[in-house]
Amino acid sequence: MDIRNELVKYKDIIEEHLDKILPNEEGYQKKIYEAMRYSIFAGGKRLRPFLILKTCEMVSGNYKNALPFASAIEMIHTYSLIHDDLPAMDDDDLRRGRPTNHKVFGEAIAILAGDGLLNFAFETMIKAMINDNSEKYINAFNEISKAAGIHGMIGGQVVDILSENKEIDKDTLDFIHKKKTSALIEASVVAGGILGGATNEEVEALRDYGRSIGLGFQIRDDILDRIGNVENLGKDIGSDEENNKATYLSLYGIDNAIEKTKELCTNACNSLRLFDKYETSIFTELAEYLVYRKK
Amino acid sequence: MDIRNELVKYKDIIEEHLDKILPNEEGYQKKIYEAMRYSIFAGGKRLRPFLILKTCEMVSGNYKNALPFASAIEMIHTYSLIHDDLPAMDDDDLRRGRPTNHKVFGEAIAILAGDGLLNFAFETMIKAMINDNSEKYINAFNEISKAAGIHGMIGGQVVDILSENKEIDKDTLDFIHKKKTSALIEASVVAGGILGGATNEEVEALRDYGRSIGLGFQIRDDILDRIGNVENLGKDIGSDEENNKATYLSLYGIDNAIEKTKELCTNACNSLRLFDKYETSIFTELAEYLVYRKK
Repeated sequence: MDIRNELVKYKDIIEEHLDKILPNEEGYQKKIYEAMRYSIFAGGKRLRPFLILKTCEMVSGNYKNALPFASAIEMIHTYSLIHDDLPAMDDDDLRRGRPTNHKVFGEAIAILAGDGLLNFAFETMIKAMINDNSEKYINAFNEISKAAGIHGMIGGQVVDILSENKEIDKDTLDFIHKKKTSALIEASVVAGGILGGATNEEVEALRDYGRSIGLGFQIRDDILDRIGNVENLGKDIGSDEENNKATYLSLYGIDNAIEKTKELCTNACNSLRLFDKYETSIFTELAEYLVYRKK
Repeated sequence: MDIRNELVKYKDIIEEHLDKILPNEEGYQKKIYEAMRYSIFAGGKRLRPFLILKTCEMVSGNYKNALPFASAIEMIHTYSLIHDDLPAMDDDDLRRGRPTNHKVFGEAIAILAGDGLLNFAFETMIKAMINDNSEKYINAFNEISKAAGIHGMIGGQVVDILSENKEIDKDTLDFIHKKKTSALIEASVVAGGILGGATNEEVEALRDYGRSIGLGFQIRDDILDRIGNVENLGKDIGSDEENNKATYLSLYGIDNAIEKTKELCTNACNSLRLFDKYETSIFTELAEYLVYRKK
Protein backbone atom coordinates (compact mmCIF):
# COMPACT_ATOMS: atom_id res chain seq x y z
CA MET A 1 0.00 0.00 0.00
CA ASP A 2 1.12 3.55 -0.59
CA ILE A 3 0.25 5.93 2.23
CA ARG A 4 -0.39 8.85 -0.11
CA ASN A 5 -2.93 6.87 -2.11
CA GLU A 6 -4.62 5.71 1.09
CA LEU A 7 -4.81 9.27 2.41
CA VAL A 8 -6.42 10.42 -0.85
CA LYS A 9 -8.90 7.53 -0.85
CA TYR A 10 -10.07 8.20 2.71
CA LYS A 11 -10.00 11.97 2.18
CA ASP A 12 -12.77 11.50 -0.38
CA ILE A 13 -14.80 9.32 1.99
CA ILE A 14 -14.42 11.81 4.84
CA GLU A 15 -15.21 14.86 2.73
CA GLU A 16 -18.30 13.18 1.31
CA HIS A 17 -19.52 12.49 4.85
CA LEU A 18 -18.73 16.03 6.02
CA ASP A 19 -20.59 17.44 3.03
CA LYS A 20 -23.58 15.23 3.83
CA ILE A 21 -23.89 16.21 7.48
CA LEU A 22 -22.90 19.90 7.49
CA PRO A 23 -25.98 22.08 7.00
CA ASN A 24 -26.31 24.06 3.82
CA GLU A 25 -29.99 24.97 3.76
CA GLU A 26 -31.45 28.45 3.32
CA GLY A 27 -32.17 30.21 6.56
CA TYR A 28 -31.52 33.35 8.56
CA GLN A 29 -28.23 31.94 9.82
CA LYS A 30 -26.98 30.81 6.38
CA LYS A 31 -23.85 32.92 6.78
CA ILE A 32 -22.49 30.68 9.52
CA TYR A 33 -23.03 27.56 7.42
CA GLU A 34 -20.95 29.23 4.68
CA ALA A 35 -18.21 30.19 7.12
CA MET A 36 -18.08 26.68 8.61
CA ARG A 37 -17.93 25.07 5.17
CA TYR A 38 -15.32 27.57 3.96
CA SER A 39 -12.83 26.36 6.55
CA ILE A 40 -13.86 22.70 6.59
CA PHE A 41 -13.40 22.43 2.83
CA ALA A 42 -10.13 24.37 2.72
CA GLY A 43 -8.13 21.36 1.58
CA GLY A 44 -6.79 19.73 4.75
CA LYS A 45 -5.07 16.34 4.68
CA ARG A 46 -7.82 14.86 6.91
CA LEU A 47 -5.10 13.18 8.96
CA ARG A 48 -7.11 12.89 12.20
CA PRO A 49 -10.26 11.37 10.68
CA PHE A 50 -8.03 9.10 8.57
CA LEU A 51 -6.46 7.83 11.79
CA ILE A 52 -9.84 7.08 13.36
CA LEU A 53 -11.12 5.19 10.34
CA LYS A 54 -7.92 3.20 9.78
CA THR A 55 -7.37 2.16 13.40
CA CYS A 56 -11.03 1.15 13.59
CA GLU A 57 -10.49 -1.03 10.51
CA MET A 58 -7.17 -2.43 11.69
CA VAL A 59 -8.73 -4.05 14.76
CA SER A 60 -11.50 -5.52 12.53
CA GLY A 61 -14.13 -2.80 13.01
CA ASN A 62 -16.33 -1.36 10.26
CA TYR A 63 -15.05 2.13 9.44
CA LYS A 64 -18.59 3.30 8.60
CA ASN A 65 -19.56 3.21 12.28
CA ALA A 66 -16.63 5.52 13.01
CA LEU A 67 -17.54 8.12 10.35
CA PRO A 68 -19.53 10.47 12.67
CA PHE A 69 -16.57 10.49 15.08
CA ALA A 70 -14.10 11.03 12.23
CA SER A 71 -16.11 14.01 10.98
CA ALA A 72 -16.47 15.34 14.52
CA ILE A 73 -12.74 15.33 15.12
CA GLU A 74 -12.12 17.13 11.83
CA MET A 75 -14.65 19.79 12.91
CA ILE A 76 -12.85 20.17 16.25
CA HIS A 77 -9.50 20.49 14.48
CA THR A 78 -10.94 23.06 12.05
CA TYR A 79 -12.60 25.19 14.75
CA SER A 80 -9.27 25.32 16.61
CA LEU A 81 -7.55 26.63 13.46
CA ILE A 82 -10.23 29.32 12.94
CA HIS A 83 -9.88 30.57 16.52
CA ASP A 84 -6.05 30.28 16.49
CA ASP A 85 -5.88 32.49 13.39
CA LEU A 86 -7.91 35.33 14.98
CA PRO A 87 -6.23 38.73 15.45
CA ALA A 88 -6.34 38.29 19.25
CA MET A 89 -4.49 34.96 18.89
CA ASP A 90 -1.88 34.24 16.17
CA ASP A 91 -3.27 36.94 13.83
CA ASP A 92 -2.72 34.98 10.63
CA ASP A 93 -4.00 36.16 7.25
CA LEU A 94 -3.35 32.94 5.37
CA ARG A 95 -4.21 29.32 6.10
CA ARG A 96 -3.53 26.56 3.59
CA GLY A 97 -2.81 29.26 1.01
CA ARG A 98 -6.23 30.93 1.35
CA PRO A 99 -7.42 33.93 3.39
CA THR A 100 -8.26 32.91 6.96
CA ASN A 101 -11.89 32.69 8.07
CA HIS A 102 -12.03 36.10 9.77
CA LYS A 103 -10.44 37.75 6.71
CA VAL A 104 -13.38 36.54 4.62
CA PHE A 105 -16.31 36.58 7.07
CA GLY A 106 -15.20 39.08 9.73
CA GLU A 107 -14.14 38.36 13.28
CA ALA A 108 -17.59 37.96 14.82
CA ILE A 109 -18.70 35.31 12.33
CA ALA A 110 -15.31 33.58 12.56
CA ILE A 111 -15.66 33.27 16.34
CA LEU A 112 -19.20 31.94 15.94
CA ALA A 113 -18.22 29.58 13.10
CA GLY A 114 -15.60 28.12 15.44
CA ASP A 115 -18.12 27.79 18.26
CA GLY A 116 -20.59 26.31 15.78
CA LEU A 117 -18.14 23.66 14.55
CA LEU A 118 -17.16 22.64 18.09
CA ASN A 119 -20.79 22.35 19.12
CA PHE A 120 -21.75 20.54 15.90
CA ALA A 121 -18.95 18.03 16.47
CA PHE A 122 -20.60 17.00 19.73
CA GLU A 123 -24.07 17.07 18.16
CA THR A 124 -22.80 14.71 15.46
CA MET A 125 -21.34 12.22 17.92
CA ILE A 126 -24.35 12.16 20.23
CA LYS A 127 -26.69 11.76 17.26
CA ALA A 128 -24.82 8.60 16.28
CA MET A 129 -25.49 7.27 19.78
CA ILE A 130 -29.25 7.76 19.79
CA ASN A 131 -29.78 4.42 18.07
CA ASP A 132 -26.82 2.66 19.64
CA ASN A 133 -25.93 3.66 23.18
CA SER A 134 -23.14 1.13 23.47
CA GLU A 135 -20.26 1.72 25.85
CA LYS A 136 -17.66 1.95 23.12
CA TYR A 137 -19.37 5.00 21.67
CA ILE A 138 -19.40 6.70 25.06
CA ASN A 139 -15.74 5.82 25.66
CA ALA A 140 -14.65 7.11 22.24
CA PHE A 141 -16.64 10.33 22.82
CA ASN A 142 -15.00 10.68 26.22
CA GLU A 143 -11.47 10.32 24.75
CA ILE A 144 -12.16 12.90 22.04
CA SER A 145 -13.80 15.48 24.32
CA LYS A 146 -11.03 15.24 26.94
CA ALA A 147 -8.31 15.60 24.28
CA ALA A 148 -10.04 18.65 22.79
CA GLY A 149 -10.52 20.49 26.09
CA ILE A 150 -8.66 22.41 28.75
CA HIS A 151 -6.64 19.35 29.74
CA GLY A 152 -5.78 18.77 26.09
CA MET A 153 -5.74 20.95 22.98
CA ILE A 154 -7.22 24.12 24.52
CA GLY A 155 -4.84 23.83 27.48
CA GLY A 156 -1.91 23.64 25.06
CA GLN A 157 -3.11 26.65 23.12
CA VAL A 158 -3.46 28.67 26.34
CA VAL A 159 0.15 27.99 27.29
CA ASP A 160 1.30 28.64 23.71
CA ILE A 161 -0.41 32.07 23.75
CA LEU A 162 0.92 32.92 27.22
CA SER A 163 4.47 31.94 26.13
CA GLU A 164 4.69 34.38 23.23
CA ASN A 165 7.64 36.75 23.51
CA LYS A 166 8.87 34.86 26.54
CA GLU A 167 11.77 32.56 27.23
CA ILE A 168 10.29 29.13 27.95
CA ASP A 169 11.96 26.01 29.19
CA LYS A 170 11.93 22.57 27.62
CA ASP A 171 9.22 21.26 29.96
CA THR A 172 6.85 24.04 28.96
CA LEU A 173 7.50 23.43 25.26
CA ASP A 174 6.95 19.72 25.82
CA PHE A 175 3.60 20.50 27.47
CA ILE A 176 2.53 22.73 24.56
CA HIS A 177 3.44 20.10 21.97
CA LYS A 178 1.81 17.22 23.81
CA LYS A 179 -1.41 19.15 24.38
CA LYS A 180 -1.82 21.50 21.45
CA THR A 181 -1.10 19.11 18.58
CA SER A 182 -0.49 15.65 19.87
CA ALA A 183 -3.55 15.22 22.12
CA LEU A 184 -6.07 15.25 19.25
CA ILE A 185 -3.92 12.98 17.06
CA GLU A 186 -3.56 10.56 19.97
CA ALA A 187 -7.31 10.67 20.63
CA SER A 188 -8.02 9.93 16.96
CA VAL A 189 -5.96 6.75 17.09
CA VAL A 190 -7.39 5.72 20.46
CA ALA A 191 -11.03 6.47 19.54
CA GLY A 192 -10.68 4.51 16.30
CA GLY A 193 -9.36 1.53 18.22
CA ILE A 194 -12.16 1.73 20.79
CA LEU A 195 -14.81 2.00 18.08
CA GLY A 196 -13.31 -0.99 16.29
CA GLY A 197 -13.43 -3.10 19.44
CA ALA A 198 -9.79 -3.00 20.60
CA THR A 199 -8.89 -4.56 23.97
CA ASN A 200 -7.65 -2.30 26.77
CA GLU A 201 -4.08 -3.42 26.13
CA GLU A 202 -4.45 -2.62 22.43
CA VAL A 203 -5.94 0.79 23.24
CA GLU A 204 -2.87 1.65 25.33
CA ALA A 205 -0.50 0.53 22.57
CA LEU A 206 -2.44 2.73 20.14
CA ARG A 207 -2.13 5.59 22.63
CA ASP A 208 1.66 5.20 22.55
CA TYR A 209 1.63 5.10 18.77
CA GLY A 210 -0.57 8.21 18.57
CA ARG A 211 1.59 10.13 21.05
CA SER A 212 4.77 9.36 19.08
CA ILE A 213 3.40 10.32 15.68
CA GLY A 214 1.66 13.39 17.14
CA LEU A 215 4.86 14.74 18.62
CA GLY A 216 6.86 13.75 15.53
CA PHE A 217 4.31 15.54 13.34
CA GLN A 218 4.63 18.72 15.44
CA ILE A 219 8.43 18.76 15.40
CA ARG A 220 8.41 18.13 11.65
CA ASP A 221 6.02 21.10 11.34
CA ASP A 222 8.52 23.27 13.23
CA ILE A 223 11.29 22.07 10.92
CA LEU A 224 9.20 22.83 7.83
CA ASP A 225 8.33 26.25 9.24
CA ARG A 226 12.07 26.98 9.25
CA ILE A 227 13.12 25.37 6.00
CA GLY A 228 9.88 25.30 3.98
CA ASN A 229 8.36 27.97 1.82
CA VAL A 230 4.88 29.45 1.51
CA GLU A 231 4.02 27.26 -1.46
CA ASN A 232 4.68 23.91 0.13
CA LEU A 233 3.55 24.67 3.66
CA GLY A 234 0.52 26.77 2.70
CA LYS A 235 0.84 29.20 5.57
CA ASP A 236 2.88 32.29 6.30
CA ILE A 237 6.52 31.31 6.31
CA GLY A 238 8.40 31.78 9.55
CA SER A 239 5.20 32.77 11.34
CA ASP A 240 6.40 31.10 14.53
CA GLU A 241 9.58 33.16 14.47
CA GLU A 242 7.57 36.30 13.71
CA ASN A 243 5.40 35.67 16.77
CA ASN A 244 8.54 34.99 18.80
CA LYS A 245 7.39 31.50 19.57
CA ALA A 246 9.78 28.98 20.99
CA THR A 247 9.90 25.81 18.90
CA TYR A 248 11.69 22.50 19.23
CA LEU A 249 14.31 23.93 16.86
CA SER A 250 14.96 27.09 18.81
CA LEU A 251 15.49 25.13 22.03
CA TYR A 252 17.28 22.04 20.72
CA GLY A 253 18.69 23.02 17.31
CA ILE A 254 17.82 21.51 13.93
CA ASP A 255 20.09 18.45 14.16
CA ASN A 256 18.57 17.35 17.46
CA ALA A 257 15.09 18.05 16.08
CA ILE A 258 15.71 15.75 13.11
CA GLU A 259 17.20 13.12 15.42
CA LYS A 260 14.12 13.35 17.68
CA THR A 261 11.71 12.78 14.79
CA LYS A 262 13.64 9.61 13.85
CA GLU A 263 13.43 8.37 17.44
CA LEU A 264 9.70 9.06 17.59
CA CYS A 265 9.18 7.22 14.34
CA THR A 266 10.97 4.19 15.77
CA ASN A 267 8.88 4.38 18.97
CA ALA A 268 5.70 4.56 16.94
CA CYS A 269 6.66 1.49 14.91
CA ASN A 270 7.58 -0.42 18.07
CA SER A 271 4.12 0.29 19.52
CA LEU A 272 2.65 -1.59 16.58
CA ARG A 273 4.24 -4.92 17.60
CA LEU A 274 1.19 -5.87 19.63
CA PHE A 275 -0.84 -5.87 16.42
CA ASP A 276 1.16 -8.53 14.60
CA LYS A 277 -2.01 -10.47 13.81
CA TYR A 278 -3.36 -7.46 11.92
CA GLU A 279 -2.16 -5.68 8.80
CA THR A 280 -0.13 -2.76 10.18
CA SER A 281 2.10 -1.75 7.27
CA ILE A 282 0.02 1.33 6.55
CA PHE A 283 0.70 2.60 10.09
CA THR A 284 4.45 2.11 9.70
CA GLU A 285 4.28 4.00 6.42
CA LEU A 286 2.19 6.71 8.02
CA ALA A 287 4.67 7.25 10.86
CA GLU A 288 7.49 7.56 8.32
CA TYR A 289 5.43 9.87 6.15
CA LEU A 290 4.51 12.20 9.02
CA VAL A 291 7.97 12.64 10.45
CA TYR A 292 9.86 12.83 7.17
CA ARG A 293 7.32 14.57 4.91
CA LYS A 294 8.60 17.32 2.66
CA LYS A 295 5.30 19.16 2.53
CA MET B 1 -43.28 28.15 48.32
CA ASP B 2 -41.60 31.36 47.41
CA ILE B 3 -39.78 31.32 44.10
CA ARG B 4 -37.02 33.63 45.32
CA ASN B 5 -36.19 31.33 48.22
CA GLU B 6 -36.25 28.32 45.92
CA LEU B 7 -33.90 30.03 43.45
CA VAL B 8 -31.48 30.83 46.27
CA LYS B 9 -31.63 27.31 47.65
CA TYR B 10 -30.85 25.67 44.32
CA LYS B 11 -28.29 28.36 43.44
CA ASP B 12 -26.22 27.09 46.37
CA ILE B 13 -26.56 23.47 45.26
CA ILE B 14 -25.57 24.35 41.69
CA GLU B 15 -22.64 26.53 42.68
CA GLU B 16 -21.33 23.87 45.01
CA HIS B 17 -21.43 21.35 42.17
CA LEU B 18 -19.79 23.76 39.72
CA ASP B 19 -17.05 24.47 42.24
CA LYS B 20 -16.51 20.75 42.71
CA ILE B 21 -16.14 19.88 39.04
CA LEU B 22 -14.39 22.94 37.58
CA PRO B 23 -10.60 22.46 37.70
CA ASN B 24 -8.57 24.64 39.99
CA GLU B 25 -5.30 22.79 40.26
CA GLU B 26 -1.86 24.23 39.65
CA GLY B 27 -0.59 23.75 36.14
CA TYR B 28 0.77 25.48 33.07
CA GLN B 29 -2.75 26.32 31.93
CA LYS B 30 -3.95 27.66 35.31
CA LYS B 31 -4.83 31.00 33.73
CA ILE B 32 -7.73 29.46 31.80
CA TYR B 33 -9.15 27.85 34.94
CA GLU B 34 -9.13 31.29 36.57
CA ALA B 35 -10.83 32.88 33.57
CA MET B 36 -13.50 30.18 33.43
CA ARG B 37 -14.19 30.47 37.16
CA TYR B 38 -14.23 34.26 37.00
CA SER B 39 -17.22 34.23 34.67
CA ILE B 40 -18.92 31.14 36.10
CA PHE B 41 -18.90 32.63 39.61
CA ALA B 42 -19.95 36.13 38.55
CA GLY B 43 -23.26 35.92 40.37
CA GLY B 44 -25.77 34.64 37.83
CA LYS B 45 -29.29 33.61 38.86
CA ARG B 46 -28.61 29.99 37.74
CA LEU B 47 -32.01 30.00 36.05
CA ARG B 48 -31.23 27.32 33.48
CA PRO B 49 -29.74 24.76 35.89
CA PHE B 50 -32.59 25.54 38.31
CA LEU B 51 -35.05 24.63 35.56
CA ILE B 52 -33.33 21.30 34.86
CA LEU B 53 -33.23 20.28 38.50
CA LYS B 54 -36.82 21.36 39.28
CA THR B 55 -38.43 19.76 36.21
CA CYS B 56 -36.48 16.58 36.93
CA GLU B 57 -37.89 16.62 40.47
CA MET B 58 -41.41 17.53 39.41
CA VAL B 59 -41.82 14.35 37.37
CA SER B 60 -40.46 12.33 40.33
CA GLY B 61 -36.81 12.13 39.32
CA ASN B 62 -33.83 12.57 41.66
CA TYR B 63 -32.29 15.99 40.98
CA LYS B 64 -28.83 14.67 41.85
CA ASN B 65 -28.73 12.65 38.64
CA ALA B 66 -29.40 15.86 36.71
CA LEU B 67 -26.60 17.87 38.36
CA PRO B 68 -23.93 17.23 35.69
CA PHE B 69 -26.41 18.37 33.03
CA ALA B 70 -27.42 21.42 35.10
CA SER B 71 -23.77 22.43 35.48
CA ALA B 72 -23.14 21.79 31.78
CA ILE B 73 -25.94 24.09 30.69
CA GLU B 74 -24.69 26.85 33.00
CA MET B 75 -21.23 26.48 31.43
CA ILE B 76 -22.76 26.74 27.95
CA HIS B 77 -24.73 29.84 28.98
CA THR B 78 -21.60 31.40 30.51
CA TYR B 79 -19.35 30.71 27.51
CA SER B 80 -21.95 32.37 25.27
CA LEU B 81 -21.86 35.50 27.44
CA ILE B 82 -18.03 35.62 27.34
CA HIS B 83 -17.99 35.39 23.55
CA ASP B 84 -20.95 37.79 23.13
CA ASP B 85 -19.13 40.44 25.18
CA LEU B 86 -15.98 40.35 22.99
CA PRO B 87 -14.99 43.51 21.10
CA ALA B 88 -15.77 41.80 17.77
CA MET B 89 -19.29 41.02 19.02
CA ASP B 90 -21.26 43.28 21.42
CA ASP B 91 -18.10 44.92 22.81
CA ASP B 92 -19.36 45.17 26.39
CA ASP B 93 -17.13 46.28 29.24
CA LEU B 94 -19.48 45.29 32.05
CA ARG B 95 -21.41 42.10 32.79
CA ARG B 96 -23.39 41.68 36.00
CA GLY B 97 -21.73 44.82 37.32
CA ARG B 98 -18.17 43.50 36.87
CA PRO B 99 -15.59 43.91 34.11
CA THR B 100 -16.19 41.41 31.30
CA ASN B 101 -13.88 38.44 30.89
CA HIS B 102 -11.72 39.93 28.12
CA LYS B 103 -11.32 43.17 30.13
CA VAL B 104 -9.69 41.14 32.91
CA PHE B 105 -7.89 38.34 31.06
CA GLY B 106 -7.41 39.75 27.56
CA GLU B 107 -9.16 38.74 24.36
CA ALA B 108 -7.15 35.60 23.60
CA ILE B 109 -7.77 34.02 27.00
CA ALA B 110 -11.43 35.09 26.92
CA ILE B 111 -11.93 33.32 23.58
CA LEU B 112 -10.19 30.21 24.94
CA ALA B 113 -12.09 30.35 28.27
CA GLY B 114 -15.32 30.34 26.25
CA ASP B 115 -14.11 27.43 24.12
CA GLY B 116 -12.96 25.69 27.29
CA LEU B 117 -16.33 26.05 29.03
CA LEU B 118 -18.24 24.80 25.97
CA ASN B 119 -15.96 21.79 25.67
CA PHE B 120 -16.01 21.12 29.42
CA ALA B 121 -19.82 21.18 29.39
CA PHE B 122 -19.78 18.25 26.98
CA GLU B 123 -17.00 16.50 28.90
CA THR B 124 -19.10 16.78 32.05
CA MET B 125 -22.19 15.28 30.46
CA ILE B 126 -20.38 12.39 28.78
CA LYS B 127 -18.52 11.61 32.01
CA ALA B 128 -21.87 11.18 33.77
CA MET B 129 -22.79 8.63 31.11
CA ILE B 130 -19.74 6.40 31.48
CA ASN B 131 -21.35 4.50 34.35
CA ASP B 132 -24.91 4.79 33.11
CA ASN B 133 -25.40 4.80 29.35
CA SER B 134 -29.19 4.91 29.57
CA GLU B 135 -31.22 6.37 26.73
CA LYS B 136 -32.55 9.25 28.80
CA TYR B 137 -29.03 10.60 29.30
CA ILE B 138 -28.36 10.47 25.57
CA ASN B 139 -31.70 12.14 24.79
CA ALA B 140 -31.11 14.93 27.34
CA PHE B 141 -27.60 15.47 25.95
CA ASN B 142 -29.04 15.60 22.43
CA GLU B 143 -31.62 18.25 23.41
CA ILE B 144 -28.99 20.44 25.09
CA SER B 145 -26.42 20.18 22.30
CA LYS B 146 -28.97 20.97 19.57
CA ALA B 147 -30.30 23.97 21.52
CA ALA B 148 -26.78 25.33 22.04
CA GLY B 149 -25.69 25.02 18.42
CA ILE B 150 -26.13 26.56 15.00
CA HIS B 151 -29.79 25.60 14.88
CA GLY B 152 -30.29 27.10 18.33
CA MET B 153 -28.40 29.65 20.41
CA ILE B 154 -25.40 30.15 18.09
CA GLY B 155 -27.76 30.51 15.11
CA GLY B 156 -29.66 33.23 17.00
CA GLN B 157 -26.47 35.05 17.88
CA VAL B 158 -25.34 34.98 14.23
CA VAL B 159 -28.55 36.64 13.10
CA ASP B 160 -28.43 39.11 15.98
CA ILE B 161 -24.90 40.16 14.98
CA LEU B 162 -25.80 40.39 11.27
CA SER B 163 -28.87 42.53 12.12
CA GLU B 164 -26.97 45.30 13.91
CA ASN B 165 -27.56 48.72 12.38
CA LYS B 166 -30.16 47.22 10.06
CA GLU B 167 -33.93 47.46 9.85
CA ILE B 168 -35.24 43.99 10.61
CA ASP B 169 -38.75 42.63 10.33
CA LYS B 170 -40.80 40.93 13.03
CA ASP B 171 -40.06 37.43 11.72
CA THR B 172 -36.32 37.99 12.00
CA LEU B 173 -36.66 39.36 15.53
CA ASP B 174 -38.84 36.40 16.42
CA PHE B 175 -36.12 34.05 15.10
CA ILE B 176 -33.43 35.81 17.14
CA HIS B 177 -35.47 35.65 20.35
CA LYS B 178 -36.50 32.02 19.90
CA LYS B 179 -32.96 30.89 19.15
CA LYS B 180 -30.63 33.18 21.08
CA THR B 181 -32.33 33.12 24.47
CA SER B 182 -35.31 30.84 24.43
CA ALA B 183 -33.69 27.71 22.95
CA LEU B 184 -31.43 27.05 25.94
CA ILE B 185 -34.19 27.80 28.48
CA GLU B 186 -36.51 25.44 26.60
CA ALA B 187 -33.80 22.76 26.48
CA SER B 188 -33.25 23.10 30.24
CA VAL B 189 -36.90 22.38 30.96
CA VAL B 190 -37.04 19.54 28.42
CA ALA B 191 -33.77 17.92 29.54
CA GLY B 192 -34.88 18.03 33.17
CA GLY B 193 -38.13 16.31 32.26
CA ILE B 194 -36.33 13.63 30.23
CA LEU B 195 -33.83 12.98 33.03
CA GLY B 196 -36.68 12.69 35.53
CA GLY B 197 -38.47 10.12 33.39
CA ALA B 198 -41.21 12.23 31.76
CA THR B 199 -43.40 10.62 29.08
CA ASN B 200 -43.19 11.92 25.50
CA GLU B 201 -46.45 13.84 26.01
CA GLU B 202 -45.08 15.43 29.17
CA VAL B 203 -41.84 16.34 27.42
CA GLU B 204 -43.79 18.22 24.74
CA ALA B 205 -45.86 20.08 27.37
CA LEU B 206 -42.60 21.05 29.08
CA ARG B 207 -41.27 22.23 25.73
CA ASP B 208 -44.29 24.57 25.38
CA TYR B 209 -43.76 25.84 28.92
CA GLY B 210 -40.06 26.44 28.30
CA ARG B 211 -40.70 28.26 25.03
CA SER B 212 -43.22 30.60 26.67
CA ILE B 213 -41.09 31.52 29.66
CA GLY B 214 -37.99 31.81 27.47
CA LEU B 215 -39.62 34.32 25.16
CA GLY B 216 -41.29 36.14 28.08
CA PHE B 217 -37.91 36.35 29.82
CA GLN B 218 -36.29 37.87 26.72
CA ILE B 219 -39.02 40.47 26.19
CA ARG B 220 -38.88 41.40 29.88
CA ASP B 221 -35.11 41.81 29.45
CA ASP B 222 -35.73 44.22 26.57
CA ILE B 223 -38.20 46.15 28.75
CA LEU B 224 -35.71 46.33 31.63
CA ASP B 225 -32.99 47.46 29.21
CA ARG B 226 -35.21 50.46 28.42
CA ILE B 227 -36.59 51.28 31.85
CA GLY B 228 -33.99 49.74 34.20
CA ASN B 229 -30.78 51.21 35.47
CA VAL B 230 -27.22 49.94 35.74
CA GLU B 231 -27.65 49.00 39.38
CA ASN B 232 -30.60 46.71 39.01
CA LEU B 233 -29.79 45.18 35.63
CA GLY B 234 -26.06 44.84 36.20
CA LYS B 235 -25.05 45.63 32.64
CA ASP B 236 -24.57 48.75 30.57
CA ILE B 237 -27.90 50.56 30.37
CA GLY B 238 -29.43 50.98 26.94
CA SER B 239 -26.68 48.84 25.40
CA ASP B 240 -29.13 47.43 22.88
CA GLU B 241 -30.06 50.91 21.72
CA GLU B 242 -26.39 51.85 21.58
CA ASN B 243 -25.67 48.90 19.30
CA ASN B 244 -28.71 49.85 17.21
CA LYS B 245 -30.30 46.54 17.93
CA ALA B 246 -33.95 46.00 17.15
CA THR B 247 -35.86 44.79 20.21
CA TYR B 248 -39.43 43.74 20.83
CA LEU B 249 -40.02 47.26 22.13
CA SER B 250 -38.63 49.05 19.13
CA LEU B 251 -40.83 47.02 16.76
CA TYR B 252 -44.01 46.68 18.83
CA GLY B 253 -43.89 49.49 21.42
CA ILE B 254 -43.74 49.10 25.19
CA ASP B 255 -47.49 48.58 25.75
CA ASN B 256 -47.60 45.67 23.33
CA ALA B 257 -44.42 44.27 24.85
CA ILE B 258 -45.98 44.24 28.33
CA GLU B 259 -49.17 42.73 26.91
CA LYS B 260 -47.11 40.01 25.19
CA THR B 261 -45.32 39.04 28.40
CA LYS B 262 -48.71 38.60 30.13
CA GLU B 263 -49.92 36.39 27.28
CA LEU B 264 -46.77 34.27 27.43
CA CYS B 265 -47.15 33.88 31.18
CA THR B 266 -50.71 32.61 30.68
CA ASN B 267 -49.53 30.20 27.96
CA ALA B 268 -46.81 28.89 30.22
CA CYS B 269 -49.27 28.25 33.05
CA ASN B 270 -51.69 26.52 30.68
CA SER B 271 -48.92 24.14 29.60
CA LEU B 272 -48.70 22.96 33.19
CA ARG B 273 -52.24 21.51 33.19
CA LEU B 274 -50.96 18.11 32.09
CA PHE B 275 -49.02 17.89 35.35
CA ASP B 276 -52.00 18.17 37.69
CA LYS B 277 -50.92 15.06 39.58
CA TYR B 278 -47.62 16.76 40.43
CA GLU B 279 -46.80 19.83 42.52
CA THR B 280 -46.54 22.60 39.92
CA SER B 281 -47.06 25.81 41.92
CA ILE B 282 -43.36 26.64 41.77
CA PHE B 283 -43.51 26.66 37.96
CA THR B 284 -46.49 29.03 37.96
CA GLU B 285 -44.63 31.32 40.34
CA LEU B 286 -41.52 31.08 38.18
CA ALA B 287 -43.37 32.10 35.01
CA GLU B 288 -44.83 35.11 36.83
CA TYR B 289 -41.47 36.00 38.32
CA LEU B 290 -39.66 35.86 34.97
CA VAL B 291 -42.08 37.99 33.01
CA TYR B 292 -42.85 40.56 35.71
CA ARG B 293 -39.50 40.75 37.52
CA LYS B 294 -38.25 44.22 38.46
CA LYS B 295 -34.61 43.22 38.46
